[in-house]
Order: sequence, then structure tokens, then C-alpha cells
Amino acid sequence: MSAPGPYLSFLTDFGENTAPAVCRGVIWSIVPAARINDLTHASRQFAVRDGAFLLWSAIPYLPIGVHLAVVDPGVGTARRAVGLRCGRGDVLIGPDNGLLIPAAEALGGVEEARELANRDLWLPVTTSTFHGRDVFAPVAANLAAGASAFRDVGTELAVAELVRLPAPAVRTSNGVLETEVTYVDSFGNLRLHGGRRALEAAFGDATEGDRFGLSVGGRRAEAVALERSFGHVAPGALILYVDSSGDLAIGANQADLAARLGVESGEPVRIHLTD
Amino acid sequence: MSAPGPYLSFLTDFGENTAPAVCRGVIWSIVPAARINDLTHASRQFAVRDGAFLLWSAIPYLPIGVHLAVVDPGVGTARRAVGLRCGRGDVLIGPDNGLLIPAAEALGGVEEARELANRDLWLPVTTSTFHGRDVFAPVAANLAAGASAFRDVGTELAVAELVRLPAPAVRTSNGVLETEVTYVDSFGNLRLHGGRRALEAAFGDATEGDRFGLSVGGRRAEAVALERSFGHVAPGALILYVDSSGDLAIGANQADLAARLGVESGEPVRIHLTD
Amino acid sequence: MSAPGPYLSFLTDFGENTAPAVCRGVIWSIVPAARINDLTHASRQFAVRDGAFLLWSAIPYLPIGVHLAVVDPGVGTARRAVGLRCGRGDVLIGPDNGLLIPAAEALGGVEEARELANRDLWLPVTTSTFHGRDVFAPVAANLAAGASAFRDVGTELAVAELVRLPAPAVRTSNGVLETEVTYVDSFGNLRLHGGRRALEAAFGDATEGDRFGLSVGGRRAEAVALERSFGHVAPGALILYVDSSGDLAIGANQADLAARLGVESGEPVRIHLTD
Repeated sequence: MSAPGPYLSFLTDFGENTAPAVCRGVIWSIVPAARINDLTHASRQFAVRDGAFLLWSAIPYLPIGVHLAVVDPGVGTARRAVGLRCGRGDVLIGPDNGLLIPAAEALGGVEEARELANRDLWLPVTTSTFHGRDVFAPVAANLAAGASAFRDVGTELAVAELVRLPAPAVRTSNGVLETEVTYVDSFGNLRLHGGRRALEAAFGDATEGDRFGLSVGGRRAEAVALERSFGHVAPGALILYVDSSGDLAIGANQADLAARLGVESGEPVRIHLTD
Repeated sequence: MSAPGPYLSFLTDFGENTAPAVCRGVIWSIVPAARINDLTHASRQFAVRDGAFLLWSAIPYLPIGVHLAVVDPGVGTARRAVGLRCGRGDVLIGPDNGLLIPAAEALGGVEEARELANRDLWLPVTTSTFHGRDVFAPVAANLAAGASAFRDVGTELAVAELVRLPAPAVRTSNGVLETEVTYVDSFGNLRLHGGRRALEAAFGDATEGDRFGLSVGGRRAEAVALERSFGHVAPGALILYVDSSGDLAIGANQADLAARLGVESGEPVRIHLTD
Repeated sequence: MSAPGPYLSFLTDFGENTAPAVCRGVIWSIVPAARINDLTHASRQFAVRDGAFLLWSAIPYLPIGVHLAVVDPGVGTARRAVGLRCGRGDVLIGPDNGLLIPAAEALGGVEEARELANRDLWLPVTTSTFHGRDVFAPVAANLAAGASAFRDVGTELAVAELVRLPAPAVRTSNGVLETEVTYVDSFGNLRLHGGRRALEAAFGDATEGDRFGLSVGGRRAEAVALERSFGHVAPGALILYVDSSGDLAIGANQADLAARLGVESGEPVRIHLTD
């Protein structure tokens, strides 16, 4: 068994079609031995925040390499294409719309940012609607191949110039935790901003089995029990838990809570002591 | 062309999200050259029987290696995580809820069963809701890498102790075959328990073109013709056939029969001679 | 880093199940180092034309290799299984129903066509409903492995004998362009037959920002603006653009136009000068 090829991650909102495979074709044409990990191509379409959440939550578990992400409602307009070099030796490639920033911060922050302005690393012919194929994939592949140094991708940018998404907020007072849904996962669980520390700030010595009142999107929902995992409550019952990324989350045992409550990411959530 | 890396299969009910890719990231971090075959991540959520069917039907066609399967409604509760070593040199990794047993039997039976109790093979930090990432994937990767022997995964279990799903039944009498839907495939075909032998027990010398009466879920359906393949009947018409796993199945030519009849796996099916 | 294994593309209408993975298992059992690029397995079921469009649009970006495609409503009937050798050294493998022809033409045309009649390259046991696994995948893998020469797959066929799909038509007159929807992509954009040349034939000096009248499926739709990319119009507004394959296309900014208009592939489209 010989040395494996370079590692790339690949996340988009392209959906179920051939676009991801076409990009893999471009990558494999440049670096035939590449190991490509398709993170997902079903990130909610045009939802930059959802893509940013998914990349952020995955990245601690991914090998060092080039991480390519394309959720890009501004394709073909003046928005910049960027590369971000981070501490471990990782490079993030994607549009400059905030998509890459949370993952970069999880990797210790951006050490060097560059605009993907060097057309020598693009496909020879480019279109206005498929920069994933024409710009992002070939730049990522050239970097992964080691054929190009990071400084060759284009002009350096000040890190402070990069576009950032507004940060979600969590507010706690004695007996109340106010946050928002940062992501609805494929099981219908509501992933929330804030983790165990926010829980302690609001409820101090809360322990497993404690029950709380819950409002989502301003609408009162059923009470929720703090538990370690779903199997501890009856099918359909609600649990509040610290999810696999260390964030708070609310879900229902073997049921799709988001569908039941009609919730999308971005909606406010209020958790409070019951009377 | 050098020796390829070790082979792993990977089946879950995680759905369309980044969870499978995160597990692949864990695997590739441990064994960078791994060849990972994603069997599916759309096994019906929480449906252990569906996952067991899919793994069983795929396994005769898969290379020898480590087969990782996670359909695990009991994650975070007392259910055990297990590894099963089988004859060809295959190892099955997953929860002890019956998911792995039919595949193990297709491989000649379990030669050695162990509980995945050795935390040295897990991720250093584990959560209560994502054992696919924290326990199953790293154990599978360590085994695939050859870094750990099977006996190192944990305590040996008696094979008779393993959790098993209730076996589906097929009953035949002269002119009647009673069975159940073991799986609804993505074309809407009803895969049934029992194969050509059950057909012969019920109908003796049945040949292609013969027509039978059909009830599904206690409701009378259209007559069905015994045929080798779909193209032998008109679009929309029903066929009874021996499917690609050697089981009986019922489908409609270029149409989704399960949707038309409102059928799910587990429902009873009665095939009988027409008057 | 050593020489990577042989490249295969893989496109089907199998849907979200284990069938593609079973075929990959067959391929990896024959050629363990194969790099397999799953183009998509969600090509519209039984829709040969959709599969042909997807393979055609992807192929210019794929490495040289064996391209396996299975959209095969005639599986198990008298339709032939074929291999087509093309100029670059590519081989296309699939049913003889027109699926492979547009891609072959994009590769410079068929140099040699053969029926997959040599059972030595199939699985030892074959079924009537899963030729992807039993016939197409093992033949493709044997070719990719270099174990078999193309002439060994079976009897030579005259290229003129191959089944072809009826070609879509584009008609232009002064101020009118009549064409049809060749494909609805996963964003709901309508991909049309005909490219920039047809646009010029109908509208001469049309430039970005020009607006046109539009009918789809005989029903009047909103006016459409010629633009380079979506971000140049308001959310929901319609654009006419040259898509990433060089074809004309119509879409709506950040919206699913096909769903809004209730359009499927094959429907007529009329673009005309407004008064």
C-alpha cells in the first residue's frame, strides 16, 4: 500500500444532479490520485448560513487538505472568489460571502486570504453560471496537487475585508435562555446557538431529567426534558441535549420535530423554567 | 498502479447531510488510503429491518473488508456496539440490534462476536448522539488499517446473546402463497420473503405468463403475471418475478406500485390461483 | 504518491438505494484500485433522454476512461447491451437505446461499436432485472482493468445500427426562436436545445438587458431578460442565458421556475420580440 493522494473536501448546494461529479471530473483531471470527500451537495439552496454551519461542524473531523465549498447565490456577479489558508495547513476555497469563515475560525483563524484572481489556475474557458466547475474546482485541485503554492492563487486580501455573516446571539438570564435555530438537521432536530455554558448560565445546576418550557418562533411548544440521548424519552417526546458539535439542540425521539412545529433555521427559541 | 488501500462498506439511515462525510473524515484520518463504498445513507430512518435487508442483499457483491452499518434508534442507551467476524475475513461493525445478522449469515455465519468496549479505538471525546462518528467509524478504520486485531475491539460475546430481529414467515399451500413485504425498493417494487422454492411449493409448475390473484395488506389488488422482467407487460401492469437477490417480488412496469397501493414493508401479501 | 487506478464514470436512474453501491462492489472486486465517479443515480427514472443529456453535458469535463450509464426501461427484453469506443480512448458502456449516443458524439463520434455478448466478462450468474450489476458493471470493470481488450466484449455492430433518440429541433425566424426543453435541472432551470448561434439567428444583435416575450408549453409566461447570470435580476425574475454547456436556458433568480410553470422536459418553448 503506497502513499495515498491528496485529500479534498467538497460541499455545495448543487442538489441531486451531475454538477458535483463534473467538478470531481475537473479535479481528477488535474490530480488523478485525489481523495475527494463529498460533505454534502444538499446544503439548502442559496442558504449561505446553512452551508457555513455544515462546513463548520464537519471540519474538526476532516483530514488536513483543501476544503472546497460552493453555496453561491451571487455567482457571476461582482462577489469575490477567495482562498483562505489556516493554521494546520488547511486551505478553504469558495465565494467571499461568509460561507468559509466559521470553519476557518474552527481551524484557528485565517492566516492568509487571497482573491482567486489568477486565471492560469482556472479552466481555459469559463462561464457565468458554473464557477464551481470553471474556477473553484480547478484552483482547489491545483493547490491539492502541490503544483501551485497558495500565494499563486491571486492577490492578497486583508482578513478584515472578508464578508462575514451576522453572528447569532444567545441571551441568558436567571431561568431563561433565548437563542435561535442555527440549523435544522435531516432528522428534524433543531440545532441551537450556544452550548453547555449557556445552559449553566440560565439554569445553573440543571441535570438530566429536568423539564423546561419551550417556545419556538414565538409559539409555545411542548415541554422539553434535558437528556443525554433520544432513547431516554418516549417516542415523539421532546428532548433538550448537547449535540455532537457541543451545541444545544432540541429534538423528538424517532420523529421530525422541525416538520411538526413548522420551523426553519433562523427562528428564535426560548427555553425557560416551568412554574 | 500500486496495491489499493483497504476496503470498507458504509450503510446508515443518516439521510442527506454531512454525517456520513464526517465519518469518512474520521476513517480517512486513521487510514488515509481506505476505499469507502457508501452503500446508502437513505436507509429508512430508525427502521432496523430495512437496513438489515439492504446490507444482506448487497453483501454477496462486495469485496472482503470491514462493513460498517449504523441504523441505531437506541444510540446513547444501553444497547451494545458490536463487531462480528465472519468466514471470508469480513468484519461487520454496528449496533447490536439485529441489523448485522442477516448479512453475517449470508457470509456463512458469525465466527466471533465482540462488544466494542475498548475505548482506545474510539475517538478521544465521545458524545451520546453520534456513535457513528465517535465509536463505530474509528473502530472500523482501526480494523481496516490492520493497526488492531479483531480481538482488540473488546470483550467476546456468545453468538447466541446477539439481538436478532423476528424472522419473516412464508406459508404455502396448494394454490396459495402467504408472505410479507420485506422491503419497498426505490422503484416502488415490493420485495417479498421467499424465493423460487416457495413459488413451486404453492403453484408447482407455474410458468411465465401465468396470472395470479393478489392481496396486499388485506386489500385486493389487480392480478399479477409471472414474468422474467418488466418489459414483458404493458406500462403500469403488475408482474411477479424472482428479483436480483433470488427473492420473489411484485412490481409494476415503469410505475411505483408501493405508492399506488399505499404499501410499506412488513405488510402481508397473499398470492393465489385465480378462478 | 503512486500511479492512481483506472477511471470510471457511473450514471444511472437507480435512485437512492444500494444498487449503485452493489455495482461499485462488483467493479472494485474486479479492479480494486478503480476511481469511480458517480455522475448521478437520480437521473429521472425510465427517461432515456434525460440520462443522455446528463452524460453528454458532463463528458467534456471527465477524465479519459470507461463511462458506464444505465437508464434501461427495457432491461431483460431483447434490447442490446453495447460498448462504444470513441476517439480519445474513452469507452461508453450501456443499453442500446440512445442513452450513449450524444456523449459519444461529444467525444468525436463512435469509432467502434460492439454488442456485450461475451458472457465471460459478465458475472457467472445473471438475473433479468439487474443487468447493471450482472452485465454492465463487470464488463466496464474488465475493460478498465485492462484485462480485456475492447474487441473481446462481443460482436461488432455497424454504427448505423445503433438505436438513436429523435433529435430535438430549433427553428428561428426574424424575431422568433422556437425550441424545446431538453432538461429541467435541479434548480428548476429549463435547459433548451440551441445555443448562442440560434439566438443570433433569431434576434441578431441581442445584448444583455434586452427583454423578450416567452411561451412555455403553449402557455404565455412572464417576460425574460437576456443576462449573463442570475444575480443581475431581482429574486424571482426570469433570465435567458447561455448555460454552462453552451446551450440556451431560462431560469428564475433563486427560484424554481420549472415548478412555478409546471414544466417538464420535452415541452415546446417560444421566445419572441416583445411589441
